[in-house]
Amino acid sequence: MQCGEPVEQVALRPGMTVGELVSALGRAGAYNGGALARAAGVYEAMLRDDQVVKFMGLAGAMVPAGMGRIVSDLIDRGHVDVLVSTGANLTHDIIEALGCRHYHGSSCCSDVELRQEEINRIYDVFLPNNAFVQFEEFMQGVFSDLSPGAPLTIRDLLATLGRALPSGILASAARNEVPVYCPALADSMIGLQYWLFSQTHRITVDAFLDMQPLLSTCFDAQKAGALLIGGGVPKNFILQSMLMTPRGFDYAVQLTGDRPDLGGLSGATLDEARSWGKITEAASAVTVYGDATITFPLLVAAVMERIDV
Amino acid sequence: MQCGEPVEQVALRPGMTVGELVSALGRAGAYNGGALARAAGVYEAMLRDDQVVKFMGLAGAMVPAGMGRIVSDLIDRGHVDVLVSTGANLTHDIIEALGCRHYHGSSCCSDVELRQEEINRIYDVFLPNNAFVQFEEFMQGVFSDLSPGAPLTIRDLLATLGRALPSGILASAARNEVPVYCPALADSMIGLQYWLFSQTHRITVDAFLDMQPLLSTCFDAQKAGALLIGGGVPKNFILQSMLMTPRGFDYAVQLTGDRPDLGGLSGATLDEARSWGKITEAASAVTVYGDATITFPLLVAAVMERIDV
Amino acid sequence: MQCGEPVEQVALRPGMTVGELVSALGRAGAYNGGALARAAGVYEAMLRDDQVVKFMGLAGAMVPAGMGRIVSDLIDRGHVDVLVSTGANLTHDIIEALGCRHYHGSSCCSDVELRQEEINRIYDVFLPNNAFVQFEEFMQGVFSDLSPGAPLTIRDLLATLGRALPSGILASAARNEVPVYCPALADSMIGLQYWLFSQTHRITVDAFLDMQPLLSTCFDAQKAGALLIGGGVPKNFILQSMLMTPRGFDYAVQLTGDRPDLGGLSGATLDEARSWGKITEAASAVTVYGDATITFPLLVAAVMERIDV
Amino acid sequence: MQCGEPVEQVALRPGMTVGELVSALGRAGAYNGGALARAAGVYEAMLRDDQVVKFMGLAGAMVPAGMGRIVSDLIDRGHVDVLVSTGANLTHDIIEALGCRHYHGSSCCSDVELRQEEINRIYDVFLPNNAFVQFEEFMQGVFSDLSPGAPLTIRDLLATLGRALPSGILASAARNEVPVYCPALADSMIGLQYWLFSQTHRITVDAFLDMQPLLSTCFDAQKAGALLIGGGVPKNFILQSMLMTPRGFDYAVQLTGDRPDLGGLSGATLDEARSWGKITEAASAVTVYGDATITFPLLVAAVMERIDV
Repeated sequence: MQCGEPVEQVALRPGMTVGELVSALGRAGAYNGGALARAAGVYEAMLRDDQVVKFMGLAGAMVPAGMGRIVSDLIDRGHVDVLVSTGANLTHDIIEALGCRHYHGSSCCSDVELRQEEINRIYDVFLPNNAFVQFEEFMQGVFSDLSPGAPLTIRDLLATLGRALPSGILASAARNEVPVYCPALADSMIGLQYWLFSQTHRITVDAFLDMQPLLSTCFDAQKAGALLIGGGVPKNFILQSMLMTPRGFDYAVQLTGDRPDLGGLSGATLDEARSWGKITEAASAVTVYGDATITFPLLVAAVMERIDV
Repeated sequence: MQCGEPVEQVALRPGMTVGELVSALGRAGAYNGGALARAAGVYEAMLRDDQVVKFMGLAGAMVPAGMGRIVSDLIDRGHVDVLVSTGANLTHDIIEALGCRHYHGSSCCSDVELRQEEINRIYDVFLPNNAFVQFEEFMQGVFSDLSPGAPLTIRDLLATLGRALPSGILASAARNEVPVYCPALADSMIGLQYWLFSQTHRITVDAFLDMQPLLSTCFDAQKAGALLIGGGVPKNFILQSMLMTPRGFDYAVQLTGDRPDLGGLSGATLDEARSWGKITEAASAVTVYGDATITFPLLVAAVMERIDV
Repeated sequence: MQCGEPVEQVALRPGMTVGELVSALGRAGAYNGGALARAAGVYEAMLRDDQVVKFMGLAGAMVPAGMGRIVSDLIDRGHVDVLVSTGANLTHDIIEALGCRHYHGSSCCSDVELRQEEINRIYDVFLPNNAFVQFEEFMQGVFSDLSPGAPLTIRDLLATLGRALPSGILASAARNEVPVYCPALADSMIGLQYWLFSQTHRITVDAFLDMQPLLSTCFDAQKAGALLIGGGVPKNFILQSMLMTPRGFDYAVQLTGDRPDLGGLSGATLDEARSWGKITEAASAVTVYGDATITFPLLVAAVMERIDV
Repeated sequence: MQCGEPVEQVALRPGMTVGELVSALGRAGAYNGGALARAAGVYEAMLRDDQVVKFMGLAGAMVPAGMGRIVSDLIDRGHVDVLVSTGANLTHDIIEALGCRHYHGSSCCSDVELRQEEINRIYDVFLPNNAFVQFEEFMQGVFSDLSPGAPLTIRDLLATLGRALPSGILASAARNEVPVYCPALADSMIGLQYWLFSQTHRITVDAFLDMQPLLSTCFDAQKAGALLIGGGVPKNFILQSMLMTPRGFDYAVQLTGDRPDLGGLSGATLDEARSWGKITEAASAVTVYGDATITFPLLVAAVMERIDV
């Protein structure tokens, strides 16, 4: 047991850059501020390492909170090789890409009144119901263009959606040929739209077929790294994908607001993942606890500053 | 704005029953203790109401924590009509049903050492790796017996697994013909086993086909109620299933350790669900924040005491 | 690294006692449910050990939530030798003892309206402002009866208040000659009342004099144990009191809803206290994370059941 | 119920300033990222308003985490008129001012080993025990120089300490004649040192006398604003100080990692404070939930950027 570097008291400067601030948090080195700085170090090393296949997990209502563009920008800059998302984030990505907007709202209000005014609430973000009218029109149109035949994979379905959209995460992924996996797609408005379509049509989407290319990617990877925004299905799906290979993730950064002592995977430390072999014994891995609407932009802005200069 | 009942100071009595304790928390009525007592009231009303289709959502690592038997007992007593689970809980249910055990462990230990001793960690629960050897044998056996042909649904696959098991959640569900949905099944060891099987065989499991019977259940229900352990996919999949119908859930109880201000669905209040129409404007709905290894047994024991007497 | 006992799946029984439930949680042994059962074991051992001086720390708004009677009952049964409290809990204890009541309210309401209706809110508990009118009358009366002279200690002031009250924590403590310490007494309505009194009178209350008898108790103790409800000043004041002695606490149970990774003492694990020597290297110590309106009554009811039989 | 501005997706730019990032979070406007941006707006307005008496509350182990210099810099720049702190932060401020250092450590380690190597742990910060040797020497020296006589106030005692130190929070406060209040001073190493001194000497420190000048400040203030880092005694002591006046706080920003549903003041929303009249009905008030080692430097750097330009 040894003391490391001394804690350096943080000195702020008007006009300092995000990268400078995160470096100062690193020299202080304590609690989640210190963890964030270490996470920036791991993420920078992961992005600079040419041998690494870069996974990204996206959970939590990040697109309604304005965090979607950070994801699509990372894809456009070549920093994402594989994206795993919840269906909800993809639903809201489509809604934004169609020109509908989410709005500043309030978390303490009458949800009954909101219901009557046809406004859906996501904590303090409001989404008028008519966005779903446009969403339905778009989705039914895309489904109609699918040619029946061999079972479709979820990844192919999402790529098709991406090609039909002008902007956003799915569009960036399609343009850059980055695969998007979403094992729980049925658990989203996209799933509900599929059900609607299936009342009159039949196209089979295979629940498991995506594991084939995903595990091929894992087997072929010399090294692997993961940036995990939130927990949920994306975190587990990414981490478990290495279990069948002789390797594990070499780099991992997790930004989560959950807590470990409840036992759930979303709040579990990355050390726990070491016991399973999901990440390697020697992996560089950091968990930052906090709201990703703060930690995600901080992390990415700091690392972009270091890498793009 | 009006004051309700006076807060009654809690008087404890040696040997008091769980139901008596929860009633005392209800007369105190404050914070999560009060919420737990109100949740017991809602859950009791939901179970007593013959018109209600009773949904249960199961997320978080509940089976490794010894909470699985509460679920299977509820199924056996007829208190669950539809179960939606994460793949992980079903994986661990199968492991326990096969006679393998989870063990008391520690949350603060060397995960590298655990890795070397082939012990997997779930917070402070240990699971020796050889459980997965038996799990693999069982799963490959069941997969081999499936007859190729028309696409299988996840629900049918899980029912097949349940019929092959002597005890546990899947077995109880199969025995009682309670459907088990698991939209993110690929995101679990069951999914990985399927991938292994698919290296040499081909059986198509449809990602969306389950929505048909689930939504039929929703359309047919006179009333609906939900007991949600944790958030994640099960919570959303259950709540969104009502969106396509003219109705919403009439009763809802959520036990979660997450927090609402991060915007994620897992920590979202049930009031938020009112704005979407997932639960009705007049629904009886309570969220209890806390570790479900405490709140879930408390809630169920208290309600069983009232109902079975 | 070794596996402990197998996790036993929890079997609930209608009418089971709280002690039976907590024992079942102990055999499951996971997460905070398991921690609660271990905490019950530590607390039971602490109460059964005749050599132990029993400290209790009380933080968080426990009295408004109906948890005050559990404290006064523990005092009356001889299970508390030293109480350290926040000023707020003592203020609300006096209010209840004067016959004023707290009321069931709501956490999502207009605080501006509440203000206009002269109702004070504590999360979902309401306290009409007129309680403070009676409180003021009582406090000014007690202060007036104090004889000016040598500096008073906070402990003596609180004992004087306790003797003037018919029931509650302060009354039980006075009746049983249990000292009540409250180092931050100025930070409460009691402090504000003192300020009011001091506009026209002068009685000196010494800020530090209480440390003398408290540390004497610590030096004289053969063994020491602590039950800490919440963190804050009471937790630290109790734990630090051992720092000057050659000993540390031998038993410690902490019930807190905070989290450790923020670095604050309130959420800190008891293991951290071991590094400081506040608790001994071999101490039996357990932290249970969760809302104390649930964990506190559960813990005490379970232990009373074991001890009183 | 109305929608506000549309959520603007956050666009990051390498080399962007902290102020630019916080502004982008404000245009996104969601969850705690949005709250942080609104808090920056409130804090900026509070600092720009010449009529405002500016209070600062400091709780949580902020100095060991390297956040102390932000506080002393704010004092030096004239942005703090009244500081209320925990005793622990002042203890660690003295330790740093004496040239002792805190060190980067680890949160998952053997606290028994740490104990044996005489290293004290604060989550992942290590503090070698010898710091307390120097601390004791300094404290006993200062106490010895105090002239016995009329009761001392805590504020005067802290000013005396500040004048004897070369740097840090207490030194900046003394230099700038900013009063520092610490109602729970007994609950800290400073209190223990006082006890040690009092074994052979006698100086009376009055527990309540500080309320006189503090409440005078409150009565004299045209307007009042508060920046609250953490909760605890500092938060309550600041907010309650307005209760005796006809006014309340006009501006309030709270950075806390606690949660409101546990009922404790530390996690309570500032809206709750409105019902008590601690803040005015029309006050600009924002709570940001998260680790203050991230939110505090972000907030201050962003506001300094706006104000100093």
